[in-house]
Amino acid sequence: MKIVSVGTVAFDAIETPFGKTAKIVGGACTYISLSASYFNSSPHLISVVGEDFPKKTIDLFKERGINIEGLQIIKGEKTFFWSGKYHQDMNTRDTLDTQLNVLESFDPVVPESYQDCDILMLGNLTPSVQLNVIQQIKKRPKLIVLDTMNFWMEIAMEDLKKVIKKVDVLTINDEEARLLSTEYSLKKAAQIILEMGPKYLIIKKGEHGALLFDKENTFFAPALPLEQVYDPTGAGDTFAGGFVGHLSQCETINWEAMKKAIIVGSAMASFTVEKFGIERLIELDKKEIESRVSEFKKLVSFN
Amino acid sequence: MKIVSVGTVAFDAIETPFGKTAKIVGGACTYISLSASYFNSSPHLISVVGEDFPKKTIDLFKERGINIEGLQIIKGEKTFFWSGKYHQDMNTRDTLDTQLNVLESFDPVVPESYQDCDILMLGNLTPSVQLNVIQQIKKRPKLIVLDTMNFWMEIAMEDLKKVIKKVDVLTINDEEARLLSTEYSLKKAAQIILEMGPKYLIIKKGEHGALLFDKENTFFAPALPLEQVYDPTGAGDTFAGGFVGHLSQCETINWEAMKKAIIVGSAMASFTVEKFGIERLIELDKKEIESRVSEFKKLVSFN
Repeated sequence: MKIVSVGTVAFDAIETPFGKTAKIVGGACTYISLSASYFNSSPHLISVVGEDFPKKTIDLFKERGINIEGLQIIKGEKTFFWSGKYHQDMNTRDTLDTQLNVLESFDPVVPESYQDCDILMLGNLTPSVQLNVIQQIKKRPKLIVLDTMNFWMEIAMEDLKKVIKKVDVLTINDEEARLLSTEYSLKKAAQIILEMGPKYLIIKKGEHGALLFDKENTFFAPALPLEQVYDPTGAGDTFAGGFVGHLSQCETINWEAMKKAIIVGSAMASFTVEKFGIERLIELDKKEIESRVSEFKKLVSFN
Repeated sequence: MKIVSVGTVAFDAIETPFGKTAKIVGGACTYISLSASYFNSSPHLISVVGEDFPKKTIDLFKERGINIEGLQIIKGEKTFFWSGKYHQDMNTRDTLDTQLNVLESFDPVVPESYQDCDILMLGNLTPSVQLNVIQQIKKRPKLIVLDTMNFWMEIAMEDLKKVIKKVDVLTINDEEARLLSTEYSLKKAAQIILEMGPKYLIIKKGEHGALLFDKENTFFAPALPLEQVYDPTGAGDTFAGGFVGHLSQCETINWEAMKKAIIVGSAMASFTVEKFGIERLIELDKKEIESRVSEFKKLVSFN
């Protein structure tokens, strides 16, 4: 199945209790595409960067089979930059700096060759831009997955709800699920959110795993207890990439496929956090991934 | 197998975002014994109460097969009383009042008929009292399980470490694991704590489930997402009761048995939090428990 992803390709500068990076490559669509590339021979990317974006990374995208026809490179402008600092618990962070640059006027264009997309992955971005991409695709994809965050709930809830109405899967974290539903119990929150449109809801809980809901069922995916989490940046996007990557290999996209896809996404995310930025994500091989997925299976198996 | 439990039998007054109770029956050993009684025909209890403790509850213990030969009833004195208020997130609470009463001079006596104990469950209590009970039992039980809390780590760490050295299983929460090990990563914390004596470590994470560690393996038990958590009081003790209750039915106590026991403990705890105090715990039947355990299995199963 053909995957199309839209989201940021960016620079990050990150500080965690374990270290500090200079300006490194990041962005939701970077993580999504790289992660998906381990399961899909050609993930299609839609994004925007400035003239300052390294050719080396664009070459890396190509090497990993990522189709970058939808990547706009804006001459004379600079790439989106985000800088943040994580607290000791690694679950919360402060934004130190945000320079929108090319993102300010990002007008995504879906190339003709992307039109027969099966799975559309909307990475975290302005809801109106996400909606714009949905509207450009003439034949509705088999599956639309939406990632978003509390920021958009606070400043663009109306737009966001329009997008939520059009998607099949929504992925948010526990705090965002509570914010969106105005309900504290995640079980109740899930039912309220599923009424807003999506057929499936994934609630990500970081080091505590993830929950998958549809109207009848619940699934709990564990998180692997890790020796060290160096940098949580991109974990959610890596998760999303592994999730859609796995689904693109499935014959039917149903509850059973979703469950496995969440385990695969969690396994991929568990690699990303082991090093800074995309460092760990780009050095994986299939055997290592399969062995990590087996660890997740072992982690919850009992007789 | 014969279970002996030591811990408080007490009065609680609880306030949660969903309501407030008058003085109701609580205490670690109350929850442990009641929970274990669904799996073991005669859990043996060691505790102390005052003259004010209701005969009705003592009759309830007897009805549920709980052996109360080890329960001291001190004439002219009052039962231990604790009052607390839970925050919105239900994971944190403030103690409003603590009246030690009979607990102040509690000198546990292990009855002769308890001596052939197979599983000793040390409920949360002053470490020196827990140690006293271990020392009174002449033939070492097959399994000693210890529950404790941050409070003892802060005021009696030395005593606590002596007890930890003597037990097979330690159950604490994530915050306590970090405090005890002075290590943030739970995986690293677990290895440090296992060096202190116990063969198994259970880290309870409330609504996020529980982790089981030995030196080689890790197991993740989910928590059932519930519509409503009315009152978390006693959840950890109910867990412990279900845990030892299940183990007492096992032929061999090994890693496989431990995993199932944690699921059973989690299932039992998921009932307790649905109502205030012991209300839900005393109205269960075996069928309901089996069906809840199946829900846990379903929650994490994937192909």
